Amino acid sequence: MPHIDPKMQECIDDCLDCYEACLSMAMGHCLEAGGQHTEPPHFRLMMACAEICRTAAHFMLIGTPHHRHICGECAEICAECAADCERIGDMADCVEACRRCVESCQRMAA
Amino acid sequence: MPHIDPKMQECIDDCLDCYEACLSMAMGHCLEAGGQHTEPPHFRLMMACAEICRTAAHFMLIGTPHHRHICGECAEICAECAADCERIGDMADCVEACRRCVESCQRMAA
Amino acid sequence: MPHIDPKMQECIDDCLDCYEACLSMAMGHCLEAGGQHTEPPHFRLMMACAEICRTAAHFMLIGTPHHRHICGECAEICAECAADCERIGDMADCVEACRRCVESCQRMAA
Amino acid sequence: MPHIDPKMQECIDDCLDCYEACLSMAMGHCLEAGGQHTEPPHFRLMMACAEICRTAAHFMLIGTPHHRHICGECAEICAECAADCERIGDMADCVEACRRCVESCQRMAA
Repeated sequence: MPHIDPKMQECIDDCLDCYEACLSMAMGHCLEAGGQHTEPPHFRLMMACAEICRTAAHFMLIGTPHHRHICGECAEICAECAADCERIGDMADCVEACRRCVESCQRMAA
Repeated sequence: MPHIDPKMQECIDDCLDCYEACLSMAMGHCLEAGGQHTEPPHFRLMMACAEICRTAAHFMLIGTPHHRHICGECAEICAECAADCERIGDMADCVEACRRCVESCQRMAA
Repeated sequence: MPHIDPKMQECIDDCLDCYEACLSMAMGHCLEAGGQHTEPPHFRLMMACAEICRTAAHFMLIGTPHHRHICGECAEICAECAADCERIGDMADCVEACRRCVESCQRMAA
Repeated sequence: MPHIDPKMQECIDDCLDCYEACLSMAMGHCLEAGGQHTEPPHFRLMMACAEICRTAAHFMLIGTPHHRHICGECAEICAECAADCERIGDMADCVEACRRCVESCQRMAA
């Protein structure tokens, strides 16, 4: 993708990694484990996080200046998701992907 | 969808109608007409509008409280898209769908 | 959407209704009820059904001839989802939305 | 994503790369260049290719066995998109991403 700025490409990569982590963990680990992992507020937060990351990447690929606000919202939801995954435990991959995405998205939103 | 509040269901309907209008107009009317209709800023705005409407509906269907911020952002993008479609002309269906979505989303964001 | 054929518009409506039913039931009723409702194969089938319905509508709105194959696949997944929701019980809205979508999508795929 | 098979992870990566290439090229290069690049059949094919790649990745992340059929359809659309981008010329990145995705998706569909 030669016409995309390297900083933006890094944020797209981090958003798609976080989308992959949240969706695959929710549909794999969380559904298999049950208990706290399928408590509605936690599970919905993971699905909301996957969706906003997917959307933020889409906005950057479209090349619309509205990506700033979407990245700002993405950073907020990812931060909340990282904290909730850490609280429940046993979700280190998801926590890490969310935290990296928070940093990238905050830079894009600035 | 008996468990969804009627006000929210109305907003979901308006978001999906606006998504349909923006995507089908961009891919049909705008690509066929060319000229101002495929100017990059206008066309990208229509695609961004379609995507945020699709995402806002998704957030309301997930049942996450984060839908408020997404609806607020959706209202802003739809308002901009309505104004740009009106400027170019010959896009009355899209203008109308965007305006209805602005009102619904502003109510959800409040 | 005046330029979309009425039969196709009906299929788009049925796909988006089924997307709404599957996603909102999974994230609402199924997560709240637990038990059989969050068994991984059932829950994943509902999420796959929501996604293929969303995609089938998108293909019809783009106006690509590839919508036929996607509608054919959508009909298969919706039929399986309807049967699984009926087996588990207490999901009449979802069963009905899936069945209507099967019929519409089979007509588009023909 | 430790629980995803390496072959499937490679296919998810190839699908998301192809989604990124098609969407960013359509919204950047194609809209800027105009002419053949915004001819409706070509442009719609690129948007359909971006969407099916996005959906195929989503199905693999959900972990549903229905990913096979979606990957098969994805391979067909990507092959058509690669050929059309090659015909028009000046879209080497997109051709390459589509071809890699065809191979990965054919393996998953087998």
